[in-house]
Amino acid sequence: MMSKAALVVGASQGIGLEFARQLLDRVDRVYATYRSPDCDLFQLDSPSLERLQLDLTDEAQIERTIAKIKSETSELHYIINCVGVLHDGAMQPEKSLRHLNGDQLLKYFQINSIGAVLLAKHVQPLLKHRDRSVLATISAKVGSIGDNQLGGWYGYRASKAALNMFMRTTAIEYKRTCPNAIVVNLHPGTTDTRLSKPFQKSVPPEKLFSVDRTVRQLLDVIDQLENHQGGEFFSWDGTQIPW
Amino acid sequence: MMSKAALVVGASQGIGLEFARQLLDRVDRVYATYRSPDCDLFQLDSPSLERLQLDLTDEAQIERTIAKIKSETSELHYIINCVGVLHDGAMQPEKSLRHLNGDQLLKYFQINSIGAVLLAKHVQPLLKHRDRSVLATISAKVGSIGDNQLGGWYGYRASKAALNMFMRTTAIEYKRTCPNAIVVNLHPGTTDTRLSKPFQKSVPPEKLFSVDRTVRQLLDVIDQLENHQGGEFFSWDGTQIPW
Repeated sequence: MMSKAALVVGASQGIGLEFARQLLDRVDRVYATYRSPDCDLFQLDSPSLERLQLDLTDEAQIERTIAKIKSETSELHYIINCVGVLHDGAMQPEKSLRHLNGDQLLKYFQINSIGAVLLAKHVQPLLKHRDRSVLATISAKVGSIGDNQLGGWYGYRASKAALNMFMRTTAIEYKRTCPNAIVVNLHPGTTDTRLSKPFQKSVPPEKLFSVDRTVRQLLDVIDQLENHQGGEFFSWDGTQIPW
Repeated sequence: MMSKAALVVGASQGIGLEFARQLLDRVDRVYATYRSPDCDLFQLDSPSLERLQLDLTDEAQIERTIAKIKSETSELHYIINCVGVLHDGAMQPEKSLRHLNGDQLLKYFQINSIGAVLLAKHVQPLLKHRDRSVLATISAKVGSIGDNQLGGWYGYRASKAALNMFMRTTAIEYKRTCPNAIVVNLHPGTTDTRLSKPFQKSVPPEKLFSVDRTVRQLLDVIDQLENHQGGEFFSWDGTQIPW
């Protein structure tokens, strides 16, 4: 039997790290990327794990990382992209228009949207095989334009809407270029990670998932994807989210 | 009777210039912005017209322009934002993933998405009055995620989806801060302008609108907006476009 391989992008911590951990039970090789070496990924240990440094906002680094993977395998079966920022030091989600700042908005797009589609550009050759494979990107329900009732979080919302468009457009292209690869956007639900930490007070305990639970749920959704699908936006419970 | 005023952003040529022309028949003062003085706006002449130089990617310029308008009037009744780029010299819409380039993608967001929401931030004080007013932004049907069947044009599509999210989020905030202002995203249809020039071959003649017709149609849509609406995405014929 051919061996299977996975790539988890943004596996330093939280949901990405847990995807790397759970995928180690499913495939023979897990490539897991981190941005800064001072991260929890180095506490995960397995001979099947290979850690790669990657800043997704730098296309040259994406190329180098994919070239490295290609030198070891010609096929990936899971690509999970967990890179995303909501807050980060000086970067805070905007409660109202007066908090908007052009540079911060650009940064949201650069990290949450553009990195994902540049990844989709470069991983393509690793998905041109006969097995079923999945390119899953962690999006967010607040990136649904139709579902937006509360407002605020301008940059995060718009960058996730842009991400959803990028991945849907990618899905259309992949149907021609690597038809066995299913592209999907996933909403993980509110998960107990650094990203949600400042906002957990307003979340009822039963709606705050552990990373273990979130990743099991998302892998269930991934397992149930059918081949004709592509570019949809699913919640952790398998329901489709409006654009 | 109080006088009425309009602001048309991106009035150098095409749809924006025609909005300035047609709004001169409706209001007492039209502020029309251009980026480079070498443009068709200088062929439009009226004592009610005031031309202002504005690069929408520069927030300091937005502030200065709005301050100038505020020194002359405290109320705007129409704000029409026609700024957008599809192609521009070296900038070409990407037919497939291999054409993607991070810098060009950022530029799409900067011009097509971020400028619009920074404008929404700064015009707010001029919309806090008792008359009905409209903030209309020219979006594009190819920015509909749900309607995307053809793929390609990654940057343009994603930047218009982001624009739609920004303006919907703005609509939610305006309901609180300036409840008589209606926010709307508009799809003009394919119009005979520089933007569509390279793509007109595939458009049947009856579907290629003159700028005069496009602007009349869009003003009809604007006239029919009801006060409870806000943040929707309408086509030139008044039908709603899915996100």
